[in-house]
Amino acid sequence: MAVENFVAYNPVKLHFGENVVKNLGKSVKQYGNRVLLIYGRGSVKKYGYYDEVVNQLKDAGLSIFEYSGIKPNPVVDDVRNAVAYGKENKVDVIVALGGGSVIDSAKIIGLGLASDVDPWDFMTWNVLPEKTMPLVTVLTLAATGTEMNAAAVLQNAETHQKVGLVHPMNFPKESFLDPRFTVTVPKDYTAYGIVDLIAHALEAFFGEGEPSVIDLITTDIIKDAMKWAPQLMNDPENLELRSNIMLDATLALNGLTSYGKVGGDWGVHGLGHELSYLYDLAHGATLSIAYPAWLRLQKERIPERIQRMGKLIFGTEDPDEAIKMLEEFFTSISSPVRLSEAGVESEKREEVINQMNVNNVSGMHHTLSMADRTMLIDLML
Amino acid sequence: MAVENFVAYNPVKLHFGENVVKNLGKSVKQYGNRVLLIYGRGSVKKYGYYDEVVNQLKDAGLSIFEYSGIKPNPVVDDVRNAVAYGKENKVDVIVALGGGSVIDSAKIIGLGLASDVDPWDFMTWNVLPEKTMPLVTVLTLAATGTEMNAAAVLQNAETHQKVGLVHPMNFPKESFLDPRFTVTVPKDYTAYGIVDLIAHALEAFFGEGEPSVIDLITTDIIKDAMKWAPQLMNDPENLELRSNIMLDATLALNGLTSYGKVGGDWGVHGLGHELSYLYDLAHGATLSIAYPAWLRLQKERIPERIQRMGKLIFGTEDPDEAIKMLEEFFTSISSPVRLSEAGVESEKREEVINQMNVNNVSGMHHTLSMADRTMLIDLML
Repeated sequence: MAVENFVAYNPVKLHFGENVVKNLGKSVKQYGNRVLLIYGRGSVKKYGYYDEVVNQLKDAGLSIFEYSGIKPNPVVDDVRNAVAYGKENKVDVIVALGGGSVIDSAKIIGLGLASDVDPWDFMTWNVLPEKTMPLVTVLTLAATGTEMNAAAVLQNAETHQKVGLVHPMNFPKESFLDPRFTVTVPKDYTAYGIVDLIAHALEAFFGEGEPSVIDLITTDIIKDAMKWAPQLMNDPENLELRSNIMLDATLALNGLTSYGKVGGDWGVHGLGHELSYLYDLAHGATLSIAYPAWLRLQKERIPERIQRMGKLIFGTEDPDEAIKMLEEFFTSISSPVRLSEAGVESEKREEVINQMNVNNVSGMHHTLSMADRTMLIDLML
Repeated sequence: MAVENFVAYNPVKLHFGENVVKNLGKSVKQYGNRVLLIYGRGSVKKYGYYDEVVNQLKDAGLSIFEYSGIKPNPVVDDVRNAVAYGKENKVDVIVALGGGSVIDSAKIIGLGLASDVDPWDFMTWNVLPEKTMPLVTVLTLAATGTEMNAAAVLQNAETHQKVGLVHPMNFPKESFLDPRFTVTVPKDYTAYGIVDLIAHALEAFFGEGEPSVIDLITTDIIKDAMKWAPQLMNDPENLELRSNIMLDATLALNGLTSYGKVGGDWGVHGLGHELSYLYDLAHGATLSIAYPAWLRLQKERIPERIQRMGKLIFGTEDPDEAIKMLEEFFTSISSPVRLSEAGVESEKREEVINQMNVNNVSGMHHTLSMADRTMLIDLML
């Protein structure tokens, strides 16, 4: 029940629901007139989302400068290029149309546009962010929660890193969550998004502090996602199901689940980032592999906490049963629970261990030793 | 499961936990140097909270101008006087030290200080708020949620009204929630605060829209408060229990419970405000009387919704049983469930009906006819 001291702050204005995008132009116009529009690799054009957004911006009389091609695991090179292009064109507001990779990139592009610093220096805390450019997001994937938080994750091929930066400068000004923009997400990425949101809630749950109401709320989010997920997998164009999952994803990482806590754990995410980096695996796929392994590693170290998780989510106090049920859920939505299911075979064992050790993968509350990392790999194979 | 369209926005920076007040001076100084310090009728002096706050402000080098004597059911006359006093002294930031009445008053004082308009004109929407003065709050009572929302309630003796204003200008900049500042709240007001937070969650629950995760979260806030309340009544100086209730109260009315909803109902609050106005009853006491009556009035009109409430909170789908359990909970913490228990006898029946009809008491989702109001009175007597 202990409520730890905390500071809560989240100034993002969230517009949620069918057709909210019709208010996009008016919102963006409050912040600037020369829009840097960021998006990914074309699916937003295929499904008409790009046209809706561009029409909104044009109807509001705004000038549009486009940077596209952001990759699913976004890289700092794109951020650097977008910053150069945005400066050249004297943009004064950013609109990000996409999922986590596009919005995360846009956050760091904002820092780059408002400074003369190489963007990677912000990611590594070499330089502290002092100002940014206003960012408005239009979300096309329910998963990372980036639309309502201060986090951004980027990869750097030169330094072999995938790292996250959490800073108040990263909050979007406004975010538009229109469930229509998610109905075309393919089944695999729909599932990975659901895994991601569940993993976010679990990272918070296993952080320091056990405020009782937040334990309930955090596991409510997981239970709700698990309730609708199987229906959504069978009925992917159902707007109500998409809405529920979209709301769950935002709630899972907008700060709420860390009220009364020192912070989350994030050891599983650290591990997941290494797997994504090494084998270009989808973020969600790495988490459905890593979380059951992490829980098995921890079950005798933090038995009460894992029992509480099991009781609140699955109605069982048997840790093995709870972990098995979590794993079965991931399997039921076709997200892998072993590395081999994701095409990574046991000969990669040493490579993974080495990458984890080089980047010192650990949790913030439950630290991981080198021996733990080896055990984790063996539990994932 | 339907998630209604909504906009979420809450820029309040919340500092929660033991001794957070040690950061107050630094926070206030960001917004101004001449502080209008608002408080109530002296209990903050008696228990040392006033000294802590004043020392913080002095240590930060700020000038302090005090307006005290805000009443438990706050009145517009105090707001007017504080505005005049603040203008005279050219204050540039407000610090409110107290519970809902003090903080609500401070919100409207802010509107008054930033304009030349009579404050009551904002309460009645005669004039739209356009700017305000920065407000930092230090909470001494877990109850209304005002520390993290945009609402303020005031009474006007001339117009015989107690009305609420919800407007984004009313958000405090920062709020300090130190559970130490609530341990001296007497048992009756501790109970009324708990009733208030439960009623806020119920008002949200009975608003339009049934987003499944928010139903879970809203009822979990209620369950959490019901879990700790009886222990707190027996152990009022227990900081951990105070912390849990304080967090529940903030969560119950900071916007979260209205995600995916058109808004709350607020019919019971409307009724409660009339009872407070007529008989100077504590707000929470009016709600523990009015809510069971309202549920009995509605149980055949919205049976599924009341069944869902009963199932999620009390584990029963029998509406009568659920309402009885709610009533028994209120009784267990010594909050009245009938008007007679609050000293209002049946000869007041016509007076209450008249007051409700004059001010057209109703809900926003479930409207109340004149006949309904009469039925409500009879259910409360």
